[in-house]
Amino acid sequence: MAKSLEERVRQIEDRLEIYNLIASHPPSADTGSRAHVANAWIEDGTFDRGAEFGGPQQQSNSAGGMGNPEHMRAISQGLAHFSGLPYVRISGDTAFAISYLQILVPDRVGPEFEVPNHGKGRGFHVHRVSANRWDFVRTAEGWKIKTRQLRTLDGNEGARGILVGTFAE
Amino acid sequence: MAKSLEERVRQIEDRLEIYNLIASHPPSADTGSRAHVANAWIEDGTFDRGAEFGGPQQQSNSAGGMGNPEHMRAISQGLAHFSGLPYVRISGDTAFAISYLQILVPDRVGPEFEVPNHGKGRGFHVHRVSANRWDFVRTAEGWKIKTRQLRTLDGNEGARGILVGTFAE
Amino acid sequence: MAKSLEERVRQIEDRLEIYNLIASHPPSADTGSRAHVANAWIEDGTFDRGAEFGGPQQQSNSAGGMGNPEHMRAISQGLAHFSGLPYVRISGDTAFAISYLQILVPDRVGPEFEVPNHGKGRGFHVHRVSANRWDFVRTAEGWKIKTRQLRTLDGNEGARGILVGTFAE
Repeated sequence: MAKSLEERVRQIEDRLEIYNLIASHPPSADTGSRAHVANAWIEDGTFDRGAEFGGPQQQSNSAGGMGNPEHMRAISQGLAHFSGLPYVRISGDTAFAISYLQILVPDRVGPEFEVPNHGKGRGFHVHRVSANRWDFVRTAEGWKIKTRQLRTLDGNEGARGILVGTFAE
Repeated sequence: MAKSLEERVRQIEDRLEIYNLIASHPPSADTGSRAHVANAWIEDGTFDRGAEFGGPQQQSNSAGGMGNPEHMRAISQGLAHFSGLPYVRISGDTAFAISYLQILVPDRVGPEFEVPNHGKGRGFHVHRVSANRWDFVRTAEGWKIKTRQLRTLDGNEGARGILVGTFAE
Repeated sequence: MAKSLEERVRQIEDRLEIYNLIASHPPSADTGSRAHVANAWIEDGTFDRGAEFGGPQQQSNSAGGMGNPEHMRAISQGLAHFSGLPYVRISGDTAFAISYLQILVPDRVGPEFEVPNHGKGRGFHVHRVSANRWDFVRTAEGWKIKTRQLRTLDGNEGARGILVGTFAE
């Protein structure tokens, strides 16, 4: 059955709301803001950074925010999460996205580069590139993150498993 | 003549469909999935990576997928295509996009970086940054890629030619 | 009061127009095109790259375009502005966006990398990563940039101040 115009507009709004959810993650991670976490996740959401970081854990226990002095030390040294264009698919009240994410830090050991009209410095180092899978649910307070899983794109099977999900039915 | 609300909604849906087409390219390139190529391109689409890679060729003959052991070797070593925010313009049943694309690989020779709360490693190397022009057509099965052209942003005229197209009438 | 369908569609169109404004900045910066500046900014817009680059200044006096031989020299050596997914919020006839931006240049001093099926070369160097705040206004000729402020993500407070704005009311 053909969707009504209202349903089509709502699905578009869903898509743009999810874009903003993904886009608000880096400003949260790079400042330690908990406002994002409180609003963007369902209460018992799961965050899985892979075995190196302890596997799946409750997002509410996650070590990414102001409560973690190590994370705040990373921020004070310069930390940038950088998100590419995500692939997003919505099915009624659930949705998923596949995105790529870089983590960059100031380079303190490499040679200086001078770029005309763009200053001089050692620049930045790409510390990580990961494949991310986000699963979302619609709630009375809007779309929320239910689970997020990421794997470094170093050739491991886990990262490829996330990426092939883009084309799943 | 003013567009109807239905026409406006359709154009928005077109735009979001094209965003997803562009966003599904990296997961395809980084896994060797042919599902993307079969669905995303018209049958006789043309892909042009520049003279270094043989100039324009039929996408169906393109060497990017599972049939190419060299490409699969790159994937097994770690390969990440990373797409920025594209510029997209739609005109009825055709559209084009201008996008930037990075290719990153694990760095196996540089110094190790340790980032508090974010692990330790040699990080990633930006192997390529290219300007991309995508031309799309609307088909009975949705929007498809008709041609894609890319040039490395190393100062050559070809890359600038692609970028200035953003502002063409 | 619930928004009408027409108002909802218009807000979606606003959002997509702003995405294209942000996406057309890199092709402008990397070619020196003034077409973008003439169309994308209000007449007395302000651009603030931080104290290192002279603080806030009139965009019309900005040194980024064809009139600046140093900028054109950077372009001829290879220059890529690379924008991530922006966070965008619209309130009637004003809007703001928070985005991350990389500046990359060809690396002329590092080791060569050979990537199977993806050529050989020294690759690219990430010269800058910045947090950007864009403020927009709706005009009779569409959305325009009123102010843009950016700070390098090297751990300084200014960059963090821009990012926390994402979560402001």
